[in-house]
Amino acid sequence: MWCDPFVTKTAPIDLRSDTVTRPDERMSAAMADAEVGDDVLDRDPTMRELELRVAELLGTEDALWVPSGTMGNLIALSLHLRRGDRFLAPRGAHVLTHELGSAAWLAGGMPEPLNWDAGPGRPSARLVRSESTDGGGYDSLRSSLLCLENTHNEAGGAVIPPDEHAQLVAAARDNGLRVHVDGARIFNAAVALGVQPATLTVGADTVQTCLSKGLGAPVGSAVAGSGEFVEEARRMRKMLGGGVRQGGVLAAAGLVALEDTDRLRTDHDNAARLATGLTELGWSVTPPRTNIVLAAVPDVGHSLEWLSGLGVLAVPMAGRVRFVTHRDVGTADIDEVLRRVGNAS
Amino acid sequence: MWCDPFVTKTAPIDLRSDTVTRPDERMSAAMADAEVGDDVLDRDPTMRELELRVAELLGTEDALWVPSGTMGNLIALSLHLRRGDRFLAPRGAHVLTHELGSAAWLAGGMPEPLNWDAGPGRPSARLVRSESTDGGGYDSLRSSLLCLENTHNEAGGAVIPPDEHAQLVAAARDNGLRVHVDGARIFNAAVALGVQPATLTVGADTVQTCLSKGLGAPVGSAVAGSGEFVEEARRMRKMLGGGVRQGGVLAAAGLVALEDTDRLRTDHDNAARLATGLTELGWSVTPPRTNIVLAAVPDVGHSLEWLSGLGVLAVPMAGRVRFVTHRDVGTADIDEVLRRVGNAS
Amino acid sequence: MWCDPFVTKTAPIDLRSDTVTRPDERMSAAMADAEVGDDVLDRDPTMRELELRVAELLGTEDALWVPSGTMGNLIALSLHLRRGDRFLAPRGAHVLTHELGSAAWLAGGMPEPLNWDAGPGRPSARLVRSESTDGGGYDSLRSSLLCLENTHNEAGGAVIPPDEHAQLVAAARDNGLRVHVDGARIFNAAVALGVQPATLTVGADTVQTCLSKGLGAPVGSAVAGSGEFVEEARRMRKMLGGGVRQGGVLAAAGLVALEDTDRLRTDHDNAARLATGLTELGWSVTPPRTNIVLAAVPDVGHSLEWLSGLGVLAVPMAGRVRFVTHRDVGTADIDEVLRRVGNAS
Amino acid sequence: MWCDPFVTKTAPIDLRSDTVTRPDERMSAAMADAEVGDDVLDRDPTMRELELRVAELLGTEDALWVPSGTMGNLIALSLHLRRGDRFLAPRGAHVLTHELGSAAWLAGGMPEPLNWDAGPGRPSARLVRSESTDGGGYDSLRSSLLCLENTHNEAGGAVIPPDEHAQLVAAARDNGLRVHVDGARIFNAAVALGVQPATLTVGADTVQTCLSKGLGAPVGSAVAGSGEFVEEARRMRKMLGGGVRQGGVLAAAGLVALEDTDRLRTDHDNAARLATGLTELGWSVTPPRTNIVLAAVPDVGHSLEWLSGLGVLAVPMAGRVRFVTHRDVGTADIDEVLRRVGNAS
Repeated sequence: MWCDPFVTKTAPIDLRSDTVTRPDERMSAAMADAEVGDDVLDRDPTMRELELRVAELLGTEDALWVPSGTMGNLIALSLHLRRGDRFLAPRGAHVLTHELGSAAWLAGGMPEPLNWDAGPGRPSARLVRSESTDGGGYDSLRSSLLCLENTHNEAGGAVIPPDEHAQLVAAARDNGLRVHVDGARIFNAAVALGVQPATLTVGADTVQTCLSKGLGAPVGSAVAGSGEFVEEARRMRKMLGGGVRQGGVLAAAGLVALEDTDRLRTDHDNAARLATGLTELGWSVTPPRTNIVLAAVPDVGHSLEWLSGLGVLAVPMAGRVRFVTHRDVGTADIDEVLRRVGNAS
Repeated sequence: MWCDPFVTKTAPIDLRSDTVTRPDERMSAAMADAEVGDDVLDRDPTMRELELRVAELLGTEDALWVPSGTMGNLIALSLHLRRGDRFLAPRGAHVLTHELGSAAWLAGGMPEPLNWDAGPGRPSARLVRSESTDGGGYDSLRSSLLCLENTHNEAGGAVIPPDEHAQLVAAARDNGLRVHVDGARIFNAAVALGVQPATLTVGADTVQTCLSKGLGAPVGSAVAGSGEFVEEARRMRKMLGGGVRQGGVLAAAGLVALEDTDRLRTDHDNAARLATGLTELGWSVTPPRTNIVLAAVPDVGHSLEWLSGLGVLAVPMAGRVRFVTHRDVGTADIDEVLRRVGNAS
Repeated sequence: MWCDPFVTKTAPIDLRSDTVTRPDERMSAAMADAEVGDDVLDRDPTMRELELRVAELLGTEDALWVPSGTMGNLIALSLHLRRGDRFLAPRGAHVLTHELGSAAWLAGGMPEPLNWDAGPGRPSARLVRSESTDGGGYDSLRSSLLCLENTHNEAGGAVIPPDEHAQLVAAARDNGLRVHVDGARIFNAAVALGVQPATLTVGADTVQTCLSKGLGAPVGSAVAGSGEFVEEARRMRKMLGGGVRQGGVLAAAGLVALEDTDRLRTDHDNAARLATGLTELGWSVTPPRTNIVLAAVPDVGHSLEWLSGLGVLAVPMAGRVRFVTHRDVGTADIDEVLRRVGNAS
Repeated sequence: MWCDPFVTKTAPIDLRSDTVTRPDERMSAAMADAEVGDDVLDRDPTMRELELRVAELLGTEDALWVPSGTMGNLIALSLHLRRGDRFLAPRGAHVLTHELGSAAWLAGGMPEPLNWDAGPGRPSARLVRSESTDGGGYDSLRSSLLCLENTHNEAGGAVIPPDEHAQLVAAARDNGLRVHVDGARIFNAAVALGVQPATLTVGADTVQTCLSKGLGAPVGSAVAGSGEFVEEARRMRKMLGGGVRQGGVLAAAGLVALEDTDRLRTDHDNAARLATGLTELGWSVTPPRTNIVLAAVPDVGHSLEWLSGLGVLAVPMAGRVRFVTHRDVGTADIDEVLRRVGNAS
C-alpha cells in the first residue's frame, strides 16, 4: 500500500454522512425571504406550512418541527412509554445505539433489540409476535412499543417494503403495542421502492423524518402523528428545549428540500456505483439498496485513516466502514474516490 | 371604557416578548452567506466562531450553542445536579415557572424558591447562606446549586448589580454550592448597569444567554462555562436532541446580533417611556430597569383582551400584564400604544 | 448553665422520633406466629389482612403495604404526576424536605410550596385555588396534585380538621387536581380531633400512613386508594424494590399496632405536659396539638448537644428543637426530662 | 395424558421459587429476641451485625441491608451509571427482564444484552472486550458497567467459576468498566463450586445477595461494596423508600440464614434428582448445576396448568417450565413430584 503524497492535497470527498450537505442557493434565498413569526408564542407561518406539508407526505394528521431526528424520536418514545415500559427495536437501531441512551434515561424505556431474522436490519413479524408477549403478571415487563427504522442505518440503508411493514404493524397491534417509525431516511426508502412515503407509515402511530439528511436542509426534522399526539409533542418539545422562535428561516429551507425528493435516486445510483467499483477492487461490500454503502474491512480504524490520507472521508459503523452518498457528491466524485482507492491499493 | 371599532383595523403593536423580533436584512444576508459545516460531526465553523465570541463576552472558557434558553438552563442543571439535589432559585425564576418542570423531571433537582428579600427578583446573600445549609445527615437534602436570573423576568426585568452578584456567589461558594446564571437577558442587565456582561458572571460556573430575545437573532442561545463543562454539555445537548447540522446559518445571525448590544438602551428608554405614560394614565406600574414593564391591573384576562382589541399585544405574567420592548418597536410605536390606551380609557 | 457529670450516666430518654419504639411482647409473639406466604408471588395472607384493615380504617377501596412512608408517598406521586407536572404541598412538607428530592427526581414533579396562611402547616383553600390555576397555554406548567400532610411534622404535629380538609379537597377538585394525603401520623390527627381517620381522607385519591411511628410497629407503612390505584402501586413498588417475600412477619406486628390507636392520646398528653413544663422553665414552645413539641431556641446545635449531655435526645427541625413523645416514653420520663433540664438550666 | 381427580386433593408441592420458604423456629425465635434500634436514625445493631457479616462473607469493605434484591441491584446501577450510560449484562439477566425496567427508568442505563457464547448464561471475556469498546466520539454511547449474574436464573442456575469470573472482570476493567455482581444466589454458586463466596466477587465493585431465597430468611437482601459506596447507597436507599426502622427483627432472621449456607447442597442434590427423574420420564431437561431445573416443553401454559392439577407448582421462565428446589422441599417431596408426573403421563 503506497500513499501518493500529492493525493492528500486535493479536496477531500466527504462520504461520512448525508448530513454534511450545505444549503444550495434556492434554500438560502428561501431562508432570506421567509415569512416568520414566534413559533413558541403563536406558531411561525412558514414552520406551520412545513409541518402540514410533512404531515401530508407522511399521511398523518399533523406534524411538528424539531431541531433533530434524535429529538423527534425522543419525544415519540417519551409519549408512548410509561416508566420502565419495554420497547422492541431492530438490533442496531438509531434509538438504541446513536442517541446516547436517551431512550432509557429520558423516555424511561427498557429496550429489547430484535434480531434481523427477515433480512438486513429487518426483524420478522413472527419475531415481533413472540417478543411482544409479556409474562402477564403484575411483575412482568410491559411491552408497549415497536420502533421500526426505515431505512435502517446500521444495516446499510436497508429498506422495509410496504407488505412487510404492514405485517410488522399487524404483529405489534395484535399484541397491544404502538408503532413508531424512525423514518429519518424514509424518503430514501420510498424512492428506492417507488412508492409514496405514506405507504411506509400505514398503521403507525408516529413517524419521524429528517430534512437535514439526503433532502439537504441545513437543520431540522419533524415528528408526525395524530393531532392529539402533536399537541402533547409540542409541550414535550418545549420541556426538552427544542422550541425555537423565528424557525421559519429553517422551515423555508425544509420546504425547498421537500420539493424534489426524487433527486435521492441519484444518490442511490451513486451508492450502487461506489459499491460495484469497490467490489471490483476486491473490497467486501454488501450491495446497497439506498444511499449507504457498508464495507467489511480487516481493520476499520486503519482503513479510515488510510482513506482519509487519500482524501476520502468515511465513518466507522458497527464494525465496518460506512460511505454515504448525498447531493453534494456527484458521479464524478464517486469515480474519483474509486480512482484514488484503486491507485493506492 | 369605549372600544373604537376602527382601532382594531390598524396593525397590532406586539409587546408580548422580545422574542418576536424578525431578522433584519443584515442578518438575512449573513445567514445566506454563512460558511457552514456539520456541527454534530466536526463543528460548524460559524457556530464555533459564535460560541467563542459568546465565551469571550461572558468571560468563560468556552460556550455551546443551543436551540433555546430552556435547553441551555436544562443542560447546566442536569450537569450540576445529582439525582434529587436541592437547588436554590429566586421565586418566579424561569427554571421554576416557565420550563414545564424539566428542572425536576430531567435534571432531577428539588427546587427551593427564595424570597425576594433584597428587592424585586433578588434574594439576599444572607438568605442564600441560611437556605444553603443542609441538615447534614445522610438523610438530609443535599443543596448543590444556586441559580440566579439576571435580569429577572417575573420581577419585571430586575437587575442584579455586580457587588450584589459577588455577594450572592460568595454565599453560595462558602456553602459548597455551584452557581448558574440564567442570563437570558444578561446583555440588558449589562447595558442598564453600564458594565461588561462578564462583570455579571464573575465566580459563576455556568451562564446561559439568549440571542433570540432583545438581541434579535431568529433562533438560538448559548450555555457557557469551563472547557470541561462545555465538553459534557455538548454530549448532553446530543442526548436532548439539540445538536444540529449546518447551524452556521443561525450562528451567522447570532454574530450580527452580538455586534451592537448597546442598542438595547433604546428598548430600555422605550420601556421607561411606556411606564411613565401608563402611570400618567392612572395605571399601577413599577418603574422598569430594563425592557420589561409590569402593570398591576384588577383583572388580567380582561385587560389583555381589551388591549388586544386596541391593537396592543401583551401577555399575563405572575398576575400582572407584561409589556416587553424590543428592536421591532420604536418610540413612535410606544406613543401609539399610549394614544390607543389613552383614547379608549 | 451547669452540666452535672453524673446525669449523663443515666439512660438517655429518647424523644428524637416516634419511630424509635421497639416492638412489644404482643408484637413479637404475633410476628413469630404469623401465617406467611410469598407476597411477591401470590400475596402473603397476613400482609393482605393488614392491607384490607388499613383500607377499612382509611375509608379506601384497597391498600398496599410498603417498607416506608417515603415509598408510599413516592409511589402515589409517581402515579399521579406526569413528567414535569406541578404539585402543591404545604411549605416544609415531608415530600419536599425529608425524602431527598425523590418527588422531583423519581416522580418527576415540580413542587410548589404553599404558605401556611390558615395556621401552622396549613395553607388555606383560597390559596390552593389561586395556586392551582395554571397559565393555560401549552407552554405553562400543568398542576395536577395537591399533597396534604396531616399531621404536619415541621409545623409541630399540626392538625387539619375535617371541615378544612373538605374545603382544601374541594379547592383542588374544582381545579382538576388530584389529592394525596401524607397521613404518616393521621391516627394522631384522628385521636386529637376525636374523629375516625376516614373522616380525614374524604375526597382524597390516595393516603399514606405509617405503622412504625406512634403505632409502634417495627417496620412498614401503607399506601391506600382505589383498587385500580393499588394494582398499579403494587407494580411500582416492585420497580422500586419494595416488594418483599414473607412480609407477614411484619404485617402481624402492624395488625397489633392498629388494635389500639386510642393509646396515642397518652402521647399527646405527654407532649402537652412537656410543653407546659418547658414553658414554665422559660422555653419558647408552641402548644402542641399531637405528639410533637417544637421549641424555639437561640442556637439549635448547641441546645441539642447540651440536652444530649443531660441524657435527653431530640433532633433539629426547621430551625428549632423537636421532641416527639411515643409509647416507649411514659409520663415519668417526661417529668424526668423536665427535672434534668430544670436542674441544669 | 390422564388427570387423576384425587391428586389435586393432596397438598401442592411448591417449586415455583426458593423465595417461598417460611421462617423456621430458630429464625422466629431470633426475630422475637432481636436487639433493635432505629436504623434510619442511628442504625439498628442487629442490622449492622448482619451487614458486617455479609461484607465479610462477600469480601467487601461494607454492606447495606435492602428490602429486596431488586432494590440492591437498582441502587448499585443508579450509583454506577451516569444518565444514559450503556451497561452490559448477559441476555436474560434479572436486571434486564425481571425488574420492570427500573434499570432504564430509574438508573438511566441503556442495556446491552450479551449473548451466552461461553455457556448457558455466560458471555465470554472476549465478547465483553468487543462490546465494551465504544465509538469513542463525544456522540457515542458511553459504556460504564458490566453486570454479571451468578448464578444465572434464566439459564437454569448456571454458575460462573472463579477463573472465568476473573477473566470477565479483567475484560471489563481493561475497558474502564465497573463491575456489579447480581449474586442473588451467589451462595448457591459458591456451594456448587466448593469455594468461598468472596472468590466469586474478586475485583467487582459491588455485589448484591439475597437472604430470602435459598437461605430462607423471610425478607431482605444486601448490597455490598466499598465504604464510600455503602455510604452513598444508604442515601439512595432512603430516596427509594427502602430505609426501615427496627429492621433488626428481619436482620436477626438473616443472621440465622447465613449460619449454614452449606445446606444449599441438599437443594442442589434434589434438583439433580428431579432433573434425572423427569428425564427418565421423557422430559427434555438441562442437567442443573444448582437448585433450578428448566424443562423444555411443547406448551408452557398447558404444562403448568397440568402440573398444577397434579399438585405440583412451577412457573414459566424464558419459554420453559422452571422448578426451584429449596429448604421447605425434601427429597421425599421430589420423589412425590416424580410419582405424580409419572402416574399422570
